[in-house]
Order: sequence, then structure tokens, then C-alpha cells
Amino acid sequence: MNFSEELKKRTGETEEIIEGFLPPEEGRQSLIMEAMNYSVLAGGKRLRPLLMYETYRMFGGAGETVYRFMAAMEMIHTYSLVHDDLPAMDDDRYRRGKLTTHARYGHAMGILAGDGLLNFAFETAASAFDCADGEEELRRAAKALQILARKAGVYGMIGGQAVDVQETGRAVDEETLLFIYELKTGALLEASMMIGAVLAGADDGEVELLEQIASDVGTAFQIRDDILDVTGTLETLGKPANSDDRNEKTTYVTLKGLEKASEEVERISERALAGLRSLSCKNEFLLELIKALIYREK
Amino acid sequence: MNFSEELKKRTGETEEIIEGFLPPEEGRQSLIMEAMNYSVLAGGKRLRPLLMYETYRMFGGAGETVYRFMAAMEMIHTYSLVHDDLPAMDDDRYRRGKLTTHARYGHAMGILAGDGLLNFAFETAASAFDCADGEEELRRAAKALQILARKAGVYGMIGGQAVDVQETGRAVDEETLLFIYELKTGALLEASMMIGAVLAGADDGEVELLEQIASDVGTAFQIRDDILDVTGTLETLGKPANSDDRNEKTTYVTLKGLEKASEEVERISERALAGLRSLSCKNEFLLELIKALIYREK
Repeated sequence: MNFSEELKKRTGETEEIIEGFLPPEEGRQSLIMEAMNYSVLAGGKRLRPLLMYETYRMFGGAGETVYRFMAAMEMIHTYSLVHDDLPAMDDDRYRRGKLTTHARYGHAMGILAGDGLLNFAFETAASAFDCADGEEELRRAAKALQILARKAGVYGMIGGQAVDVQETGRAVDEETLLFIYELKTGALLEASMMIGAVLAGADDGEVELLEQIASDVGTAFQIRDDILDVTGTLETLGKPANSDDRNEKTTYVTLKGLEKASEEVERISERALAGLRSLSCKNEFLLELIKALIYREK
Repeated sequence: MNFSEELKKRTGETEEIIEGFLPPEEGRQSLIMEAMNYSVLAGGKRLRPLLMYETYRMFGGAGETVYRFMAAMEMIHTYSLVHDDLPAMDDDRYRRGKLTTHARYGHAMGILAGDGLLNFAFETAASAFDCADGEEELRRAAKALQILARKAGVYGMIGGQAVDVQETGRAVDEETLLFIYELKTGALLEASMMIGAVLAGADDGEVELLEQIASDVGTAFQIRDDILDVTGTLETLGKPANSDDRNEKTTYVTLKGLEKASEEVERISERALAGLRSLSCKNEFLLELIKALIYREK
């Protein structure tokens, strides 16, 4: 397997699946649909739906119900970026070289497009019940929806964002920082892998293990981000190095130093990979994908 | 039946049900929970959950699954107010005599608390699957969730808000105005009555009729609002009369005049009440509630 070629191919397939669930830009409210689709189609690694799909395949899943959850997951990730970019939040006018949604469509439409995407995510996920055949499949879809809602909400991503906002300008200790990483970054990764497993019929113990693995991946990913912010170059990062430092933001590196941070990434990553290898079903590509995420150079 | 006493009693019961599903204010993210609960507990007629419950009772519904959807509906209604009040939207610092959420907790937390409530609405509604016994009850909960998501989203309330934002400052024709009324106000009323019916086991024809009835109620309610804005007094309205006029907002009254507007309310209301009377099951209180909404003096 040539990993980078395979990654490109599978990312493209994931992209097509997501696009297939976006709302057609028609009717009197076509402008908000346009703003929603603009936000989703602005690019991205499609990492969460990809993780979901690969976990689903690892457990032998083969139907198309998962597609709706893949699209829903990317909509939730996207809405969180749209609202994060708003003037009252991070106030970013550009993301991936394109105007952010509110910069392009106006501030009010930025808020509404974000709301629209969050709501449409649940609308799309809930359409999975129409494909469910019999009680067992209904229960799996229900469980997947519950995981999606919980991990995206105040006990997951939104909770992490709220603590991050709350702590802005204050000195943050290690425990609080890891809590923010776990919720803000980890929760949607956890949901992605858990939902893939649940829809494919994995048992509760396996789903719990995947939650732990994905949580580790999220933390390692985030600490790696902090390391790259110090060691990376403009060329490899696409943004100036040390941007966190200039923003006076507490990171794992400012708290513990580069060496300790690198050791932590190593330790957490090894635990995640060992967990994945301990499962009775295997997916070599998923293993490579997770390694690539943790050990990336940009 | 003394309607106003009964209304007070049942509103109180509805309030208690909603409160029972609010998140406890604990953990590191307690501040966002506090902001969410503050928004919901700031008051309100609890009209949508009340309509849902009375429709549910009309069709012989008796379990507690509906409670979760009642709470979810009020959370969605509340989040829409929280985001509507934001500086980039209507920029309101007070609602019902209390500081709005962003005025009290800050702009960023206002955005996040709204997101949190929308997400928590689906989290709460999705918990209904845990109470569902067997395939038939699972299907009903799934159908209710689909209605909730669709009517709250871009094909419902958010769509209406988006068109409203889009048309701000432009001359609006009757068709567009009624479209905004139907989606912005009507959609959640429709969802409330439809979900009550679905959870109680009503058939598709009955659910469709209720959708039409609730749509009429929404339109009549909104036109009545336009009339009261012209004819009401500060005393009965709690806000200055003619506020729409001063805001140069197109209303049904500015478009068609007072007399035609009153005739339209009469015509649409009669159609809604006739629809309700045509159902084989009855709920006298629900009939009175709808009359009170349409013929209110404030």
C-alpha cells in the first residue's frame, strides 16, 4: 500500500460522500444554503468522516447508513469553525486562503449558516432511520445519534470551547489545558471512531476502547500542534511559527517545555497504537492514518 | 373549565418538565450551563411544549417520552432567541425585562450558549430512544426527531430567519412576508403539534392535517401581532405600539391595511379551528388555547 496515494484517493471518496448530502441551493432561502455549502466546500482534511469510515470498515461494516453520519460529522466540525471565526470569537477573516463565511456573507448570515449546519447535521443523521431495517439497525442508528449529540455538545466540543473562552487571558494549568484539548479536539475524533464502530455492530467494550484510543489521538495531535508551532517553519506550516507565543496563549510546550512535550506525544501515541493493535479486527490503513496524524511535520 | 386558571396550572407543569431536563451547572464547563439555563429560565409562555403535550393527550398519549421532546422544543425556541438578540442580529440587550444572554455573559458566551442549547435539544430528544420499547416506539421517536430537525432547520425556522435577514431594508411583497411568517413562526408550532401526534400514534393523514392547522395558527398569530402593534397600547403590549412602523418594517398591516388584516386573521383562524374540530379525538383545552392565541389582546 502506498499510503499517501491511498489517503488521497480515500479523502476524495469521502469528499464526494459529504457533497452528496449538502442541501441544493434553491428556494427563497437559497442564500443560507449557499453560505453553508461554501463553508463545507472550503476544504479540509475530512479527517473525522475518514476516521469514521475506516473504523466502520475495520468492524466489517458495509452499508451506506454510515455515509449520513460521515456528512453530519463534517457539518458539525465545519459549523464549529464558522462560529469560531466570528468577530466575537477568534475574529478571523481568512481560513485556508479563502474568506471565512461571515467575511463573505455578512456577520448575521455567518451566525445563521453555522446554526444551519449544526441543525442540518442532525437532520442528515436522523435520515439514517429511513435506511434502518428492523429493531437492531434502529438501535444502532439511535446509539450513533446519541454519541454524535453528546460529543458535539456541552459535554464534548462546545464544552471545550466554552472553557477555552472562559480561560482566555488567564494562566491555565496542565489539567485545564488537557481538559480543553480532550473536549475541543478529542470529542469529535472519539465520536467519529465510536459511531463507525457502533454502526458496524461492535460491542460496548470495543466502543469504549475506541473512545480511549481516539481521545489519545486527539491529545497527541494537539500537543504535536503545539510543538510544530515552535519548531515549524512558515513553509511547512502555512502560518508563521510561534503564533501561539505571540498570542500569549498557554500551550503544552509553554507549560512543560519541548522535550517533555515530545516525550508525552510519544507515550500517548504508543498507548493509542497499542490499543488499536489489540483489537481482533485490523485495518492497516487506519493504523497508518493515525500514525500520520500524530507524527506529521505540518 | 376555567380556562385561564387551567392555563396557568398547565403552564406551570410544562415549566417543571422543561426544568427537569436542563443540564446541572457543574464541572469545569459550568459557566456555559449557567448561561444556557439562564436563557431558558428567563420566562416565556412555554407555548410550543404546551401545544405538543395537549396534542399528545388529544391522541391518547400517556407515556413520558414526550417530555424529552417538549424540553427539546423549548431549548430550540430559546436558542433562536439568544442568537436573534446578538449584536449582529437584532442587537437587543433586554428581553422580558431581563438582560439578554450575551449582555449578561458576554458576546462569545452568547454564541456558544445558543449553540449549546441547539445541540442539547437534540441530545435531549435523542435520549427518548432509551425509553422506547420495541420497534414501533423506536420508529415513532425517530419520526419525531426527524420532524424536529427539519422544522427547526433551513427548511423551517432557520430558513425563515435567513430570508428575513436577506430582505432587511428591502420592500417585501405579500408572498415573501407570508413565507417568512410560515417558516419563522409557523414551523416550530407545526413541529410541536406534529410531534405530539406522532408520539401518541396518530396516522399520517392526521399528522398532515395538524401541520396545516398549526401553520394557520402561526400565520394568524403573526398577523394578529402586526395588528396589535398598531392598535395596542404600551400598557397591554409591554412595548411601544407602532414599533414596527418606526423600524420601517414591512408587516401584513403596512401591506394590506388594518381591515384586510383583521379579515385574514378571521378567515385563517376559522379554517384552523374547523380543522381541529374535524378530528375524531377532541381536546377542549387545546381548542381554547388556540383561540386565546389568535384572539389575544396583547
